[in-house]
Amino acid sequence: MNNLFTMKDLSTEKVHQILHTAESFAQGEKWTPAKQTFAVNLFFEPSTRTKTSFEVAERKLGIDVIPFETGSSSILKGETLEDTLKTLESIGVDLAVIRHKQDAYYESLAGKFQMKIVNGGDGCGQHPTQSLLDLLTIKQEFGKFEDLKVTIVGDLSHSRVARSNTEALAALGAEVFYSGPAEWFEGDAGNAQNYVDIDEAIEFSDVLMLLRIQHERHDTMMDLSAEQYHERYGLTPLREKRMKPGSIIMHPGPVNRGVEIADSLVESDKSRIFKQMENGVYARMAVLKHILDK
Amino acid sequence: MNNLFTMKDLSTEKVHQILHTAESFAQGEKWTPAKQTFAVNLFFEPSTRTKTSFEVAERKLGIDVIPFETGSSSILKGETLEDTLKTLESIGVDLAVIRHKQDAYYESLAGKFQMKIVNGGDGCGQHPTQSLLDLLTIKQEFGKFEDLKVTIVGDLSHSRVARSNTEALAALGAEVFYSGPAEWFEGDAGNAQNYVDIDEAIEFSDVLMLLRIQHERHDTMMDLSAEQYHERYGLTPLREKRMKPGSIIMHPGPVNRGVEIADSLVESDKSRIFKQMENGVYARMAVLKHILDK
Amino acid sequence: MNNLFTMKDLSTEKVHQILHTAESFAQGEKWTPAKQTFAVNLFFEPSTRTKTSFEVAERKLGIDVIPFETGSSSILKGETLEDTLKTLESIGVDLAVIRHKQDAYYESLAGKFQMKIVNGGDGCGQHPTQSLLDLLTIKQEFGKFEDLKVTIVGDLSHSRVARSNTEALAALGAEVFYSGPAEWFEGDAGNAQNYVDIDEAIEFSDVLMLLRIQHERHDTMMDLSAEQYHERYGLTPLREKRMKPGSIIMHPGPVNRGVEIADSLVESDKSRIFKQMENGVYARMAVLKHILDK
Repeated sequence: MNNLFTMKDLSTEKVHQILHTAESFAQGEKWTPAKQTFAVNLFFEPSTRTKTSFEVAERKLGIDVIPFETGSSSILKGETLEDTLKTLESIGVDLAVIRHKQDAYYESLAGKFQMKIVNGGDGCGQHPTQSLLDLLTIKQEFGKFEDLKVTIVGDLSHSRVARSNTEALAALGAEVFYSGPAEWFEGDAGNAQNYVDIDEAIEFSDVLMLLRIQHERHDTMMDLSAEQYHERYGLTPLREKRMKPGSIIMHPGPVNRGVEIADSLVESDKSRIFKQMENGVYARMAVLKHILDK
Repeated sequence: MNNLFTMKDLSTEKVHQILHTAESFAQGEKWTPAKQTFAVNLFFEPSTRTKTSFEVAERKLGIDVIPFETGSSSILKGETLEDTLKTLESIGVDLAVIRHKQDAYYESLAGKFQMKIVNGGDGCGQHPTQSLLDLLTIKQEFGKFEDLKVTIVGDLSHSRVARSNTEALAALGAEVFYSGPAEWFEGDAGNAQNYVDIDEAIEFSDVLMLLRIQHERHDTMMDLSAEQYHERYGLTPLREKRMKPGSIIMHPGPVNRGVEIADSLVESDKSRIFKQMENGVYARMAVLKHILDK
Repeated sequence: MNNLFTMKDLSTEKVHQILHTAESFAQGEKWTPAKQTFAVNLFFEPSTRTKTSFEVAERKLGIDVIPFETGSSSILKGETLEDTLKTLESIGVDLAVIRHKQDAYYESLAGKFQMKIVNGGDGCGQHPTQSLLDLLTIKQEFGKFEDLKVTIVGDLSHSRVARSNTEALAALGAEVFYSGPAEWFEGDAGNAQNYVDIDEAIEFSDVLMLLRIQHERHDTMMDLSAEQYHERYGLTPLREKRMKPGSIIMHPGPVNRGVEIADSLVESDKSRIFKQMENGVYARMAVLKHILDK
């Protein structure tokens, strides 16, 4: 395993191995690379949790992290991403974690570098380490994926989380449903067939995976106010009471409190939202170990 | 001691303990936390000296510092400070140092985190580690606080340094006076009673604590030019010659040379301005040790 | 050796020593300072390769690097560079690497600091560590400098690389020529006498040192399009075929592919462009060792 661009790069077998390694790290196992290792985290889009999570994961593995401010880099002088990476590789960087707004930016990079590359999120495309941390959280809870019903609620078409998770969950044997404004699913045949109303979803889902409403990417929430969206499609305290026993709530963050989910539910018993963030470090440590360990 | 928000959080006893620890660090003592410890420095306002001072203090203690660029964080996506901190805590961050422009931002955070929090300056409010480094500098010089006369010169109402110091110095037995444009003290009864003209202050003060004129926060210096302010309220070479024998000059920096103090006096015999910066590292190491050591 | 501002600071003897040390590092030698050492990289102009190269070099030497965001520093509050450096020195920083847009900014700093200072590039002036990495690359290739013919191609007047290299190469016994648009050399007698057309230069030069066309600093490339510049003055595949046997191509980066050099030649057999970047780390490690080692 040299790079991780999308969940499609990983066999089901490999996913299970990575989750197993992540669980070991969660239980306190230590591992460091055999030689001094340099990483850069190239985040061309703002991020708190993903970047910080990688920063902690890298340091827990004893990796030296080289700061790279994308806002003051040679990219401003018109350098291509590929030339920036070649430069970093020449300078001695062993690993690059990249978040970029362009969908599938990594396709043009494959096979060109000795340096390892991990996709930290591309445009509306993939976010494989988020997917792995979500899978880790589900596995910790249920011990399996087969026969679980997972409903993803929100704007699937603009969500890299949903995209990465849908493929992975299906491959692992879970059944995936979708909810949210029906308009967002129109014309998307693959998703439309598993579309369910939120009031149905809460009753049969083992996992309710809420997505962030991407104010940044939408001009409008279809003329709905935050309150109207919450009442019609969000997880309200009333809906939470009707959720299936033993089921859990997930959200990749950052949460719009009072929109996707009621403020009071963010840290409720069923919520695994902050557990997901904790698991993010272990999942990323596991990916890095599988990539760096020879 | 779990957090340090204001000097009011510290008993006189505790202040003495922290200063004692700081003096040990100044003399070369080493201490590191028992386990790998992660810190973030969340500076929502520009700062060179305070942020860099914490960065050095943390590394001297062997703490792993996670970079956090406030300008490219999820705060931009509307996340609250509290949710950002919860995220960082979940990711495994043990300590956050925060500078924020909102007065008393920390009040809403108290008791909500396992993570330790140190206030690195809030709005026009508190700046407790600056206060501790000032106290350390005074203690090194005079070996005591009782019966010392300290005059703070400048715009008290906009200075978090003055606020933190006034309380602490009084508690430790020093007598605190104020100087600067009288207009800045009008209507502020508590301060007005100890108001003295700069030409008086220099003759009886053991410590002359100059404040930075906050161009950023004032629209005007009451229609005074920098030269006029300096002549009327600043420390000129002539005034310096009349200062009490054995007295010292302090300034939290950055200095406006030729405004609060004459250019030639910044590194003069009486000046402890760069000594203060050196002491800042020891004072911060001491605070972090008292917070992290169990 | 306390600082490195320009190549003029270095005797020919010292240059040879530094290159020797750099070669040792390239072969895997280790060295760390005797005590914990703190560095800051103060880059007031954007840079990927130079800043990252120093960051890696410092960490390979076990130096603690303190982050310093020039965009959110006290410089914004009007603090002078000298006061910023005095502050950093007081806080305990041992070494500052500075890039600044002002020519010869370092002249006002000489002799004022205990802290060591390395010039990481000033305005259109000097860039000594770039020069040293270029020399290292040439020495690795030819084992000597005497009698080598080096042609620098591009806008000499705006290039700190050319300036630093011209002096150093001449002192070491190489013969330096210049090529590019003749207009850029008019009125510059010292350069004009060694001016050669690119079609001549390729036939006799051992080293073809291409400079970046500084779009940032020019309003125009004399009304030439990128294609026209490339055809008339750049290294085209046809010209590369006519280059002297055993000769090499160098470029400090970032490359404007298809302007100074054809896209297909950037990683060709004769190109040492990425080798230069690798050597940059070793050259900088060597400079830091010579400055820090007592």
